[in-house]
Amino acid sequence: MKNKFMEKRRRKFSELMIKNKMDALVAISPENVLYSTDAYIMTQKLIRDRLEIALFLPNREPIFIVCGIEESLVRKETWIEDIRSYIEFKESPIQFLVNALLEIGLEKGKIGIETHCLSAYHYDKLIRNLPNAEFVDCREVFKEARMIKDAGEIQILAKAAKATRKAVEAAFLIARPGDTETDVANQIKINLMGQGADEVSFATLGTGEKSMIINPTPSSIPLKPGDIVTADYGGLFSGYLSDLARSAAVSRASSVQSDTYKKLAIIQKNVIESIKVGTRCCDVFNKCKRLYEKEDLIFDMPHIGHGLGVGLHEEPEINPLNKRTLQENMILNIEPFVIHNGSGYHIEDLVQVTANGAKVLTESSMSDKIPIIN
Amino acid sequence: MKNKFMEKRRRKFSELMIKNKMDALVAISPENVLYSTDAYIMTQKLIRDRLEIALFLPNREPIFIVCGIEESLVRKETWIEDIRSYIEFKESPIQFLVNALLEIGLEKGKIGIETHCLSAYHYDKLIRNLPNAEFVDCREVFKEARMIKDAGEIQILAKAAKATRKAVEAAFLIARPGDTETDVANQIKINLMGQGADEVSFATLGTGEKSMIINPTPSSIPLKPGDIVTADYGGLFSGYLSDLARSAAVSRASSVQSDTYKKLAIIQKNVIESIKVGTRCCDVFNKCKRLYEKEDLIFDMPHIGHGLGVGLHEEPEINPLNKRTLQENMILNIEPFVIHNGSGYHIEDLVQVTANGAKVLTESSMSDKIPIIN
Repeated sequence: MKNKFMEKRRRKFSELMIKNKMDALVAISPENVLYSTDAYIMTQKLIRDRLEIALFLPNREPIFIVCGIEESLVRKETWIEDIRSYIEFKESPIQFLVNALLEIGLEKGKIGIETHCLSAYHYDKLIRNLPNAEFVDCREVFKEARMIKDAGEIQILAKAAKATRKAVEAAFLIARPGDTETDVANQIKINLMGQGADEVSFATLGTGEKSMIINPTPSSIPLKPGDIVTADYGGLFSGYLSDLARSAAVSRASSVQSDTYKKLAIIQKNVIESIKVGTRCCDVFNKCKRLYEKEDLIFDMPHIGHGLGVGLHEEPEINPLNKRTLQENMILNIEPFVIHNGSGYHIEDLVQVTANGAKVLTESSMSDKIPIIN
Repeated sequence: MKNKFMEKRRRKFSELMIKNKMDALVAISPENVLYSTDAYIMTQKLIRDRLEIALFLPNREPIFIVCGIEESLVRKETWIEDIRSYIEFKESPIQFLVNALLEIGLEKGKIGIETHCLSAYHYDKLIRNLPNAEFVDCREVFKEARMIKDAGEIQILAKAAKATRKAVEAAFLIARPGDTETDVANQIKINLMGQGADEVSFATLGTGEKSMIINPTPSSIPLKPGDIVTADYGGLFSGYLSDLARSAAVSRASSVQSDTYKKLAIIQKNVIESIKVGTRCCDVFNKCKRLYEKEDLIFDMPHIGHGLGVGLHEEPEINPLNKRTLQENMILNIEPFVIHNGSGYHIEDLVQVTANGAKVLTESSMSDKIPIIN
């Protein structure tokens, strides 16, 4: 097995199947297929009906059902030996899954499957072909398996976080007033590749009024003196994501702008300091909300952070309803955003929950002084 | 309405709803939401549970249900006026859809919905809340609406195709033996951005043995003299995709390599020449298969081309089972691939079906001489 943590993951799946009284666990989503098989199949994200299905059993070797077109790629990457490939358009991947479950004798089994990802169309085919099996959603099983990161994952995520911080900050450093949003956005992307990203996963940047939009698409609008620019970027590094936001003022910052940025940076710092093993996610959220209110900033966020890994928004989700407690080696983004006086400000960094509190993986200076593009 | 073709699309939806006896048509997938609303919501592809739902009715204004976080972005982009935003984690987008359908009086209606995209989990919530409504899959409706492109779409797709050809060919021109797969891959991405791509949608490149893999991930393997390199790239241009493949020999081409490339290029040319209004997709596929057999090349492709638009694989799918006939202003990729003597070869170009046959939009020279990287 190339990835030394894979055996541990597999054992974790078995434990969780037994705990949840499941006879099988089926990964369908790109992130859970990657997490469980070590195979990154790019087209899975682009071609919805090209299913790739990993089937895990508590006491038996797993089965990997893949599209024939991807078989050669998968064989090079995965540790799973029982690979069954279907011919696209001609054969049905769902029928392959049905056959595998029948072969194992699970026609009346309790099967955990990703109903949040599997389409209603395919699910319908599945339950019609196995009318006596019980299918249950297994999203929580994968969430639980993925939320605590192993040393290999933390290493990749830390490297990706640092690389992305450098990519964004370096682009801001060399940007000039008059450059367009696209100019700066493309420079960030080039920097991300230079830092080793396999893909640019998302790229949002907005200046002036557009800074108030969450996730704005870069356009030909130029950066004007007095603007606030916000950028939120993510790259893919060995299958794991980065996610980082930065804001800057163009040419100069007014006192209101400097002050707002400073307040936001201090809020972020205080929220990060409140992160301890055993703290509930909702309490971190509420802490952030209170800090906004204390500073007379408008608080209008449904969440202020989220776990990060092979998926963009993982557990722990830092929202008001999440009573889950923080545990060692959870990895999460803390990303306060505020709209004030016609501009938006956004800062996002990645932290690791440790026995000694939160460790900032972006290796950010955490300065409360607004960066200037000039 | 910013996009002058949007009114026509909307009328097409109404016609198709009436033809299919549907009381409503619901877009769920990123590509159909973009196609029907003109709003590009980047996070929709990354955060599966953040639903964005466009609801069309034959004789009533459409309703657009969006995640609150994306509302400001959507309002800037869409022509739809009735926008209803839900608070993520706290409110359910499916409940918003249920409420809208009840408000219109469709509790017993026949609703076309994307069951190939909507998850089983959300679909279950929907049918439980509207037990007397009839939900039917509407994939074919959107396929039919999207398969014939309007002048605006053809303009974007042609521009994107040409830009992508230039990006890949220019990277091959300046690549040198000894460069790694990643070096060349990154140069293609940089060129794509320089040519105006908003995103690099997919990026595959393999040298030597890896040329035989479909969709290989670029790595630190260097390009060695005697290798064949294949690259398959796509970018996003104003919401529309490009998709182009090229192959080259490193330093020199053996006579077998030159010969194999030449055969493949001539096959592609002949297949493109066989494209006429009224020809069935399966006949184009079989034509290609026969040409391989005539040249003693191994034919092992489930499809040899596909439509292209806001989605990567659209109608017309050029596979052996598709009896659909080609029509004017269908846009499709023709992409023969072959493995011969330990190397893979792949050529892919975009064509428009016109009254006078196929027009190559990539503006390729269609040379049958293998490019050399030296």
